[in-house]
Amino acid sequence: MERHFDVEMKQLKERLLYMGDLADKMIHYAIQGLVERNPELFKEVEKREKEINFLHIEIDDRCIRLLALSQPMAADLRFITAGMKINSELERIGDLAINITQNGTEYLKEVQLKPLIDIPHMAQITQKMLEDGLDSFVNKDTQLAKSILLRDDDVDGLRDQLFRELLTFMISDPATIKRALTLILIARNLERIGDHATNIAEDVIFMVLGKDVRHHVEEKEVTSASG
Amino acid sequence: MERHFDVEMKQLKERLLYMGDLADKMIHYAIQGLVERNPELFKEVEKREKEINFLHIEIDDRCIRLLALSQPMAADLRFITAGMKINSELERIGDLAINITQNGTEYLKEVQLKPLIDIPHMAQITQKMLEDGLDSFVNKDTQLAKSILLRDDDVDGLRDQLFRELLTFMISDPATIKRALTLILIARNLERIGDHATNIAEDVIFMVLGKDVRHHVEEKEVTSASG
Repeated sequence: MERHFDVEMKQLKERLLYMGDLADKMIHYAIQGLVERNPELFKEVEKREKEINFLHIEIDDRCIRLLALSQPMAADLRFITAGMKINSELERIGDLAINITQNGTEYLKEVQLKPLIDIPHMAQITQKMLEDGLDSFVNKDTQLAKSILLRDDDVDGLRDQLFRELLTFMISDPATIKRALTLILIARNLERIGDHATNIAEDVIFMVLGKDVRHHVEEKEVTSASG
Repeated sequence: MERHFDVEMKQLKERLLYMGDLADKMIHYAIQGLVERNPELFKEVEKREKEINFLHIEIDDRCIRLLALSQPMAADLRFITAGMKINSELERIGDLAINITQNGTEYLKEVQLKPLIDIPHMAQITQKMLEDGLDSFVNKDTQLAKSILLRDDDVDGLRDQLFRELLTFMISDPATIKRALTLILIARNLERIGDHATNIAEDVIFMVLGKDVRHHVEEKEVTSASG
């Protein structure tokens, strides 16, 4: 028979994965709605927002209960604190998908600017980062987690390129300004989704190795600067 | 003599407040650099970034150590988990201040568009939200924390107004597009700082009341939707 604690830990993992899947689908439907110019798909995103918000609270409760009742040590403790952090990241990804549908609703009110440039490609990369982040969490796979950190630079590069391209549009034809601006905001939301997926990867690495890779802490040189 | 645990808890609070003060100063110098058109002030922001990143890790370590060694219950447990969350919020506020300096550096390369519209006013509100968030944390003041939640709507309203105003600029004079776009991005960064201050306020309310005010959970009606 499994110990009660083990059952609770397993449930925590399952709920996080379920939440991650919801967040992933929210990005998918938000971008698909843009690509197909079908606002009905934005409703698929909204439908999942309430659920992801309840999960956010439920998972936080589970973590605090586990900390209070089981007084876990070492690896279990790191698993639970990582869970709390991943929970916040996923909730924010859900928020960003909602932002995209709001921008998208504005965008679909006007005629197509031109095929969505690199936005679907950016979405594809960030979704894969999220999926791999969750996989690396389940499998405690630090190699996979590290590969996510590298991909974040690709996302930032795409955003910069897209930004420049849209700026050129706007300057050469002011009639495109509003639409181009909306696409820039959508790209920023995708970039932030990539940031949250990166945070998840960092949380996984810390959970597994007990080693902090945030802020490139390997080059540790504490500055006593400022105040 | 104070118990070791109490000393550690006190230190945790002090370090969080010190970090909050750094974040506050980072916003201040970023906006002041824009207002005075003085890029030297952006360096004051950068100087503090490294320190805030180290604090992010240090405080996380302190929290995990406290959880592991002291196995705290109830109010202390909620204080520590709130501390972990506030720590993340402050680190992100620091990141957003850095974003503002990056946008600001671009902005200062060109002649002034016009006095910065409502940006300094937005910054003022978000800084006060952050300061009050930290005060509400120290004093366990849920009334003050609740007042922050309301102010977040003011920030969003200002952002929308500013967005419309700058859009009008861009359309009537394409020569302003790049600068107007930069100001829009700066306003978005301030809006996100307001969001993080709001998260801090929510964490404080949960810490004090053990009651979740995120996602307006009072109207609890769990949907079994989607997947």
